[in-house]
Amino acid sequence: MESEVTERMFSFVGGAMGPWRVLRMEAQIGQSLPWAPRVEAISSLVASCPKDAVWLLRGVTSNERYVTRAERQLLETKQPALGRPDAVHAALIPIRKSDTWWELAQDERRELFEERSEHIKTGLRYLPAIARRLHHSRDLGEEFDFLTWFEYAPEHSEAFEELVVTMRASEEWKYVSREVDIRLVRDSAA
Amino acid sequence: MESEVTERMFSFVGGAMGPWRVLRMEAQIGQSLPWAPRVEAISSLVASCPKDAVWLLRGVTSNERYVTRAERQLLETKQPALGRPDAVHAALIPIRKSDTWWELAQDERRELFEERSEHIKTGLRYLPAIARRLHHSRDLGEEFDFLTWFEYAPEHSEAFEELVVTMRASEEWKYVSREVDIRLVRDSAA
Repeated sequence: MESEVTERMFSFVGGAMGPWRVLRMEAQIGQSLPWAPRVEAISSLVASCPKDAVWLLRGVTSNERYVTRAERQLLETKQPALGRPDAVHAALIPIRKSDTWWELAQDERRELFEERSEHIKTGLRYLPAIARRLHHSRDLGEEFDFLTWFEYAPEHSEAFEELVVTMRASEEWKYVSREVDIRLVRDSAA
Repeated sequence: MESEVTERMFSFVGGAMGPWRVLRMEAQIGQSLPWAPRVEAISSLVASCPKDAVWLLRGVTSNERYVTRAERQLLETKQPALGRPDAVHAALIPIRKSDTWWELAQDERRELFEERSEHIKTGLRYLPAIARRLHHSRDLGEEFDFLTWFEYAPEHSEAFEELVVTMRASEEWKYVSREVDIRLVRDSAA
């Protein structure tokens, strides 16, 4: 059981190490994170920020909170795996949502998330170009609620900009109280 | 932020210490936990099982996963706080749900949880007699997915038996792969 859970836990370390070079890093909403030249993505829960690192963000992949069976079926036919050789661009976008969001009931959050903001529908339009993995952090006591990791090929950079602009204009994003946008390129591709 | 999260984290330690004396402890489904004569409920995340203790179970209170606004309003008018002087009986019921459950989409889980199993509606019938706090454990890497803590006065013992029997007969419970039922009485009341 321990190992099963470990497989769902991920850590992102910002510092001098790791195969992902930071191209830019900016706070969209609220406070930024300290600048780090590189990011390492680790498939386990790192207990504390390594001595030479600048920040440590952790999260766990989990069951879906809003996706319906019909939506899942659409997603499954289109969503690509991480690690595609040509997907040398990545983005790590940690967000925190407001207390108002978390105090909403499940049906209210679902309505805002999809019926009013088309979160799933918007993501679907960029599949299979943009691969994505969502990590939940809130219940681990982390400073962000979610960490989303995206991977895409250089020719889809413009599509990715369009995706984040669309999401940020949505009603759901009114409940985002902090967002940092970290853009990366894989070393071998630099 | 750290302190806010800490307030949502709870640990239950089975061992020789604590104000709650174990009346009985039995596995309903799957493997039991080792016998412990007492339980201590701690309002923080204990890092590891204390040397003299037998087991440590941890969880975090979180946003609701299935409750709608209408259901929340009904719950809020009736649900009592923990710690009522006359509520000297308690139950700690750790459960784990099957992979099949967790692989269901949100709408499928909601339908099983409420439309088919009346989880919320059943709980409502026993309010305000039975106070309850739900702790989420799955994403913390714990051996159980949920820990539910109940408190009630001796005169509501029979109502509590009825509640657990009803829940266990529900369709939702077909997805429970492990359940341990721990019954307790508060020391001052012993």
